[in-house]
Amino acid sequence: MLYQTTNPHGGDLYSRPVTLDFSANTNPLGTPEAVKQAVRDCLDCLHQYPDPYCRELTAAISAFEQVPVEKILCGSGAAELIFSYCSALRPKKALELAPTFSEYSAALESVGCQVERYSLKQNKDFALDEEFLSFLEKGDWDVLVLCNPNNPTGQLLPEKRLDRIVEICYQKNMRLFVDECFLDLCDEEKAVSLKRKLDAFPNLFILKAFTKSYGMAALRLGYGLCADTRLLTAMSRSVQSWNVSLPAQKAGIAALQEQNFLRKAKKIIRTEREWMKGQLEHIGFYVCPSAVNFLLFYSPYPLKERLLEQGIQLRDCANYHGLGEGWYRTAVKLPEQNRQLMEAIDRIVQERAEE
Amino acid sequence: MLYQTTNPHGGDLYSRPVTLDFSANTNPLGTPEAVKQAVRDCLDCLHQYPDPYCRELTAAISAFEQVPVEKILCGSGAAELIFSYCSALRPKKALELAPTFSEYSAALESVGCQVERYSLKQNKDFALDEEFLSFLEKGDWDVLVLCNPNNPTGQLLPEKRLDRIVEICYQKNMRLFVDECFLDLCDEEKAVSLKRKLDAFPNLFILKAFTKSYGMAALRLGYGLCADTRLLTAMSRSVQSWNVSLPAQKAGIAALQEQNFLRKAKKIIRTEREWMKGQLEHIGFYVCPSAVNFLLFYSPYPLKERLLEQGIQLRDCANYHGLGEGWYRTAVKLPEQNRQLMEAIDRIVQERAEE
Repeated sequence: MLYQTTNPHGGDLYSRPVTLDFSANTNPLGTPEAVKQAVRDCLDCLHQYPDPYCRELTAAISAFEQVPVEKILCGSGAAELIFSYCSALRPKKALELAPTFSEYSAALESVGCQVERYSLKQNKDFALDEEFLSFLEKGDWDVLVLCNPNNPTGQLLPEKRLDRIVEICYQKNMRLFVDECFLDLCDEEKAVSLKRKLDAFPNLFILKAFTKSYGMAALRLGYGLCADTRLLTAMSRSVQSWNVSLPAQKAGIAALQEQNFLRKAKKIIRTEREWMKGQLEHIGFYVCPSAVNFLLFYSPYPLKERLLEQGIQLRDCANYHGLGEGWYRTAVKLPEQNRQLMEAIDRIVQERAEE
Repeated sequence: MLYQTTNPHGGDLYSRPVTLDFSANTNPLGTPEAVKQAVRDCLDCLHQYPDPYCRELTAAISAFEQVPVEKILCGSGAAELIFSYCSALRPKKALELAPTFSEYSAALESVGCQVERYSLKQNKDFALDEEFLSFLEKGDWDVLVLCNPNNPTGQLLPEKRLDRIVEICYQKNMRLFVDECFLDLCDEEKAVSLKRKLDAFPNLFILKAFTKSYGMAALRLGYGLCADTRLLTAMSRSVQSWNVSLPAQKAGIAALQEQNFLRKAKKIIRTEREWMKGQLEHIGFYVCPSAVNFLLFYSPYPLKERLLEQGIQLRDCANYHGLGEGWYRTAVKLPEQNRQLMEAIDRIVQERAEE
């Protein structure tokens, strides 16, 4: 299937030679050894079908999230759940932010949904402002899609504003889809999951992934939390019986034990992110404040091709609604890798200055 | 997600202790060592996103099938492709055989399609008879779904009749979906793929899987062949960007090199299948003639629970349309395993005879 082969996302290592990939936002420490071991332990069971109900994994997620099993649905990566959510609900009109992760509108549009966008403003650092609440109250959509922290900005949605949004959506009989896939990599004291609202608000669906937190993008594993069990049933019926592979199920169970790995990563992310932000600002670039393992910035000089010549890949954000040419997202990786990126950017900027 | 946890398919090893599983129809030799090695080689790349276009794998399938890459679409198991086919086409009325694999109607009904069934008859060994052609010519459906060889009967569709069906569907502007997932495990001289018809009939979609032939059910990998590239594009847009995991992609490339493994398996299957058929007929059971690695039979004595007490699992076919209580499907496994099953069935039958 080669008609469209220009990957609109980060993490593409298959089109050009890449030695340092800053375009995918996964844990800078990579994959925990226990996750690799769990996959290794599957090698003699590859002929077996996976459990279609992911029972052992769901029980482990339930214990970890403190959410009952009937409010949990596993999927083949968070991305599959975005699609099965849209297939099950088939909304007619949806609202999302701009910029944000493009897979929401891809899934919404695949079921014929009209997608409207609320523009976040650079002069407010792409934060979700107070005005959004009145915008939301006046409009009419079947579903509101939010990403917390937002991708590609790294901005957390303020807790109290989010609480108001949940209430407004409920009053307006609107579904609320909140992607928390990056929340577990955020600075601890700021990151508050909406899962405490699940019981009171059955219109709320929370998306979580193993991809980013535990370096498991290759395996495809995510899950959804929702008190509307009829929705979860409809979602599970819109996909095949064996959607979550056996290695993914086993790896997920192992990953949930790796909370020290996550804490260690978060410490590195905070220090390195602030260092990288300082470096980029020192050059004179605008950098959006971020609470997580990536940074959105604007460069007046083209960076993508020049960096790729050196085997370094950034996420070119030109194809995001609400951004355009010159916007880039970089992952926060390990100190030595981040230094290599900053030196490479410095060289490009200096060459341009000398021209 | 525990509302429905009664697996309607074979291969369930998660509800009861099973030491010998005859309910899943995978290659009796298990998984080739090269496939395991390919997964092992992924362990240090688990943090990477898989190629959303499966470019290396698609090129390998293209060389193997002698079908150009633009007519190939990979999926997370053949089962995902059944669902994305239905999502992309959203047919209103479909025709399938009874009995057949239940995932077709699950997928069709998930998009609101009405499913009609053409009953295969035991007194014709569940073969697709000549009468089907006139039935097909008189009716009106958006899509006809066939399975060749049919699951759970093991019956191959006669080549000339299939050729007529392709033509009738084309004339009637009807889509034809043919599941050939078990074809590579069939007796060589009889198994003829419809892929030679792809170019002339863009209404034809052929489904293939790695699951059964190469013992890869845990990994989820299948592909579709079709000359209607717009349909393949629509199918790829109805699922997430990274639907095929990296281990599945790498395992698939390795599997296609394992043609000796497949030939060795087919030799065992043919000998063992005929031995098992003879044994079951000797007891007095009806056994459907099969060209592949499973046998459908009828037992007047309940077998399922008694075998499970001994850790042996059959596929109970009571939930198939067109079958009912007393019908079972058994995989053809290795000689020693098949002997254990036959001895266990013999004991159950003798005990009943003595009652």
